[in-house]
Amino acid sequence: MTHEKSPRHEIAHLGHVELFTPEPERSLDFFVRVLGLTENGSQGDSVFLRTWDDYEHHSLKLTAATTSGVGRTGLRASSEEALKRRVAAVEERGLGIGWVDGDPGLGPTYLFRDPDGHEIEIYWETERYQPPEELRPALKNQAQAYPGRGVSVRRLDHVNYLAKDAATNGGFICDALGGRVTEQIQLDTGVISGQWTNFAQKSYDLVYTNDWTGSTGRLHHIAFATDTREDILRAADISLDNGVFIETGPHKHAIQQTFFLYVYEPGGNRIELCNPTARLIFAPDWEPVTWTEAERAKGQAWGLKTIQSFHTHGTPPVPAQSE
Amino acid sequence: MTHEKSPRHEIAHLGHVELFTPEPERSLDFFVRVLGLTENGSQGDSVFLRTWDDYEHHSLKLTAATTSGVGRTGLRASSEEALKRRVAAVEERGLGIGWVDGDPGLGPTYLFRDPDGHEIEIYWETERYQPPEELRPALKNQAQAYPGRGVSVRRLDHVNYLAKDAATNGGFICDALGGRVTEQIQLDTGVISGQWTNFAQKSYDLVYTNDWTGSTGRLHHIAFATDTREDILRAADISLDNGVFIETGPHKHAIQQTFFLYVYEPGGNRIELCNPTARLIFAPDWEPVTWTEAERAKGQAWGLKTIQSFHTHGTPPVPAQSE
Amino acid sequence: MTHEKSPRHEIAHLGHVELFTPEPERSLDFFVRVLGLTENGSQGDSVFLRTWDDYEHHSLKLTAATTSGVGRTGLRASSEEALKRRVAAVEERGLGIGWVDGDPGLGPTYLFRDPDGHEIEIYWETERYQPPEELRPALKNQAQAYPGRGVSVRRLDHVNYLAKDAATNGGFICDALGGRVTEQIQLDTGVISGQWTNFAQKSYDLVYTNDWTGSTGRLHHIAFATDTREDILRAADISLDNGVFIETGPHKHAIQQTFFLYVYEPGGNRIELCNPTARLIFAPDWEPVTWTEAERAKGQAWGLKTIQSFHTHGTPPVPAQSE
Amino acid sequence: MTHEKSPRHEIAHLGHVELFTPEPERSLDFFVRVLGLTENGSQGDSVFLRTWDDYEHHSLKLTAATTSGVGRTGLRASSEEALKRRVAAVEERGLGIGWVDGDPGLGPTYLFRDPDGHEIEIYWETERYQPPEELRPALKNQAQAYPGRGVSVRRLDHVNYLAKDAATNGGFICDALGGRVTEQIQLDTGVISGQWTNFAQKSYDLVYTNDWTGSTGRLHHIAFATDTREDILRAADISLDNGVFIETGPHKHAIQQTFFLYVYEPGGNRIELCNPTARLIFAPDWEPVTWTEAERAKGQAWGLKTIQSFHTHGTPPVPAQSE
Repeated sequence: MTHEKSPRHEIAHLGHVELFTPEPERSLDFFVRVLGLTENGSQGDSVFLRTWDDYEHHSLKLTAATTSGVGRTGLRASSEEALKRRVAAVEERGLGIGWVDGDPGLGPTYLFRDPDGHEIEIYWETERYQPPEELRPALKNQAQAYPGRGVSVRRLDHVNYLAKDAATNGGFICDALGGRVTEQIQLDTGVISGQWTNFAQKSYDLVYTNDWTGSTGRLHHIAFATDTREDILRAADISLDNGVFIETGPHKHAIQQTFFLYVYEPGGNRIELCNPTARLIFAPDWEPVTWTEAERAKGQAWGLKTIQSFHTHGTPPVPAQSE
Repeated sequence: MTHEKSPRHEIAHLGHVELFTPEPERSLDFFVRVLGLTENGSQGDSVFLRTWDDYEHHSLKLTAATTSGVGRTGLRASSEEALKRRVAAVEERGLGIGWVDGDPGLGPTYLFRDPDGHEIEIYWETERYQPPEELRPALKNQAQAYPGRGVSVRRLDHVNYLAKDAATNGGFICDALGGRVTEQIQLDTGVISGQWTNFAQKSYDLVYTNDWTGSTGRLHHIAFATDTREDILRAADISLDNGVFIETGPHKHAIQQTFFLYVYEPGGNRIELCNPTARLIFAPDWEPVTWTEAERAKGQAWGLKTIQSFHTHGTPPVPAQSE
Repeated sequence: MTHEKSPRHEIAHLGHVELFTPEPERSLDFFVRVLGLTENGSQGDSVFLRTWDDYEHHSLKLTAATTSGVGRTGLRASSEEALKRRVAAVEERGLGIGWVDGDPGLGPTYLFRDPDGHEIEIYWETERYQPPEELRPALKNQAQAYPGRGVSVRRLDHVNYLAKDAATNGGFICDALGGRVTEQIQLDTGVISGQWTNFAQKSYDLVYTNDWTGSTGRLHHIAFATDTREDILRAADISLDNGVFIETGPHKHAIQQTFFLYVYEPGGNRIELCNPTARLIFAPDWEPVTWTEAERAKGQAWGLKTIQSFHTHGTPPVPAQSE
Repeated sequence: MTHEKSPRHEIAHLGHVELFTPEPERSLDFFVRVLGLTENGSQGDSVFLRTWDDYEHHSLKLTAATTSGVGRTGLRASSEEALKRRVAAVEERGLGIGWVDGDPGLGPTYLFRDPDGHEIEIYWETERYQPPEELRPALKNQAQAYPGRGVSVRRLDHVNYLAKDAATNGGFICDALGGRVTEQIQLDTGVISGQWTNFAQKSYDLVYTNDWTGSTGRLHHIAFATDTREDILRAADISLDNGVFIETGPHKHAIQQTFFLYVYEPGGNRIELCNPTARLIFAPDWEPVTWTEAERAKGQAWGLKTIQSFHTHGTPPVPAQSE
């Protein structure tokens, strides 16, 4: 059965993501003190956190749990009609869960799963963030005062899922939600092992990488963007002096040309700090850039070899099955 | 008579702009050697120039003329259907000129005027740039090798027109072309004296500022984006050592928070070199930020006073009528 | 009577400075939270503060007082013998006060005045800073962990005094202490109105500017250096959002080519945040660069006009006498 | 026999270095077009090149030869007397060669060898560079206009020799020339395998690393400093697009905390592009920082492992003897 392909621009942007941590206090300290996010309420086992450039209630929901991993990812629809259309498209594909009470700041929220089982929620209504007096910015076109604390990340930038089959999931993001593949990796066997998809001019928003364990629903990393590459270099200093594990970087990705640093937060989840410089994708008929194994073997943009743990560390941890 | 308002995302992006110069050789030297653009052919009195991140044939058409000013601005439609719909919308408003033979690299091109008389062309078909061997980039997701010459600007970023009435023209961009006002200035009299409009996530693409002379069809500036703020600081050094007139900056705009440097190219046109850091507009229901005279009196973001020549220098030069 | 001119390298570096503030709590908050200094003890009305790259006990002594201004400036001698020789040279010039009990962390300290009356202390013995566990750096060649708080300035960079006669005082620094004039301003009248002196490769350490009020012993500003120019740009954001008054900048000085931002701390003292990029003075026979009035009229390096308050604001405030 | 230890500050700074290349045309293109040096005359098989911040005649002498490697290193004395004293100290140690006709721009030059056999020349008289009209800088406190070509390195920063015994040679620099060891590596066997020495506040100028082949007189790398870390990141892009081999980086050294990129010039010599941020060594009684094998095993500052070729690639190439 074939379904109608979604038009572009039905999803406006990535809104927020939920992260599970078995070390809630240390993880909270990491996000607040080291990355510079701001707490904005809590509910049950979850704390809501926001970056200074987020116009909504929160960018991150940090939830205490028995293990690490990714919870729900929130995507904001471009309009109420777009929301309805996307719900229909998801239901048509048999992946819907149903309407749920939204988290604080969110209106009616529709919950579903991608083919790999990651929970995604879409919504239209959202509460615009009103900073308290002490967080009021000097410039009215900014959501919140600049924190000046640790890395002071600007925004939640993207989510990179692990999935049994990257192409099926990337295809779902494109067909059901109007995403587009901007870059991908194709193995010599023909298998697509990674797909980068975006919703508008930002060069990627949701990414799928094949899970070497054959598990489903896992996370490779979530990423926060900084204003400058210098912020990334400084983030490395801050990580070092705060005992945060640096996995690799800073360096420049060949794929998407993002300047990056990868660290593990205390709960075990991999966090990317990234800066795109001024890169955007403008062509409405952009053709996916496909990287071969031979090209990937050259390493990152300036030659850094892709670190081995990139292919062995995901959250939650599971026994390796296919290695 | 009211016309149907355009949906969003009909125009994908600003493609290129034409600049007139009475000093063609010196202007060409400025764009090639000081800004780091690359020549890509010529035709009649025009030279085509491109930035290294432009995927199309050219970003700038530099045309020898008796005076300075702006020629045609090229906007790429999001699809062939979007192009047809926008042509209809423009014609409905009585501003159309007609289909013209496109410049090198462009397919069928429709020419019209904004209400103030600036020529704008829209097109769908475009030739993807194929760099010659010596300009081939090492990374296949990049249009052209990094020039490493002068400022080495990344892309044409925006055009800022002078107009008799900014609001009428900004309104036209929104209603006929699907733009959106992201920020604006409202004088105490209620008059909108400047409007910043965008087509997608980039925070602005076309800007209108009221022309103090009451003239029409003039230019305030065109802008090229760099990858980093450091590139802007270095651009100031390069301008200084090359005898390029620096009008103001580097500093950070309060409006749109862009980091900027303004110089005059040898033909007299004002050129902005700008960097947005990682700023993008994500909210699909973004409300225009309106700045008052009192707020503008505070100057730019960090306090630099807006320079007087910002209100007196436009191209082509005309006798001041209302000062 | 002529005295023997001091050889070079008798003074190793600027060690610390004392600042008076009528707003001790707000000033302390500024230095700790906005600039990112670390408290390291207190004594009487004074709090000792240090930058993360300072190897000694403190970089700044902040003293509650009835008004603003500068207290003692501490210079570390290059050896015990150099200290003795400099004491003799100062006494020979009749400017000595005598040996005093050093502040915490300092051994025997000799106090004197420059010709304009500013108190200066020189010492050889000093206590190397031992950070407590929570401030221990990851890299052993660094004095203290990077704070990641506010501007996080690296070091106290220089002191710029106001003086009745800049040349007399700059001459004293050279003749009695082994300093060297690296740059200066000479008015059309022949008067030297400002002199920049250094002790080694850093391009300046102590600066004298003529006081327009004819007063003595006053301060133009003290300066803290950051690692990068991006740190200065971010410092402007942080100042803005924290209500810190920005006087001028960020921009690049023509003199010494320093990238700068000037703010006022809550006690009224002017603070410069500065970055030299990689500039150092290597020539052992460096000839002072002398700037004329005409050259200074061009403004700072990229054209920013020198702000008027640069010639009217000093601390402590005094009634203008000569304006 | 023991000799008198040199006082500090007898050598003012590293002046220039000679590099041998079997690929003179390609090496020249690399230094001029990729690194942005400026030609300043030639003599025989040598071309003289200068960085824009060098006040002397040249920073680099590039000499066509049958193989790669380092020729003479030039050090400028602090005075004519210092020069005489250093000549005496060198002769006393039996390492002198004699007075030679200086290269263009240099006065009387004394040639000798370090214990490992590298040729070093010291001189006092030097010709201050006078730029031709087209290279005249806008700011009079700068030696030459900023080139805006490729990396546009600021200065020759340091020379890192390979030597049979680093400690003997570092000791010679200290004892005979007044250098100081700022950092070093000590193997578990007690052997000093690398020594960083400086002459003033810059944290290192001449470095010795043990040669794994047991050869003498070889080169590990020479380094050029840029103004910013962003310049280093851009240098990596420029290297990539120009087919320049990137060996490792960009990253931050743990030792000396320098931000670095290592490339090979076409002649095979390793070139470091480096930026120190604002780091300087101020303490006149600085104690060498000694790194252990265990500490070095952690890699560079942010965790990058030291690349294997750092221990196998030196110039000129020789058969490995001890591997």
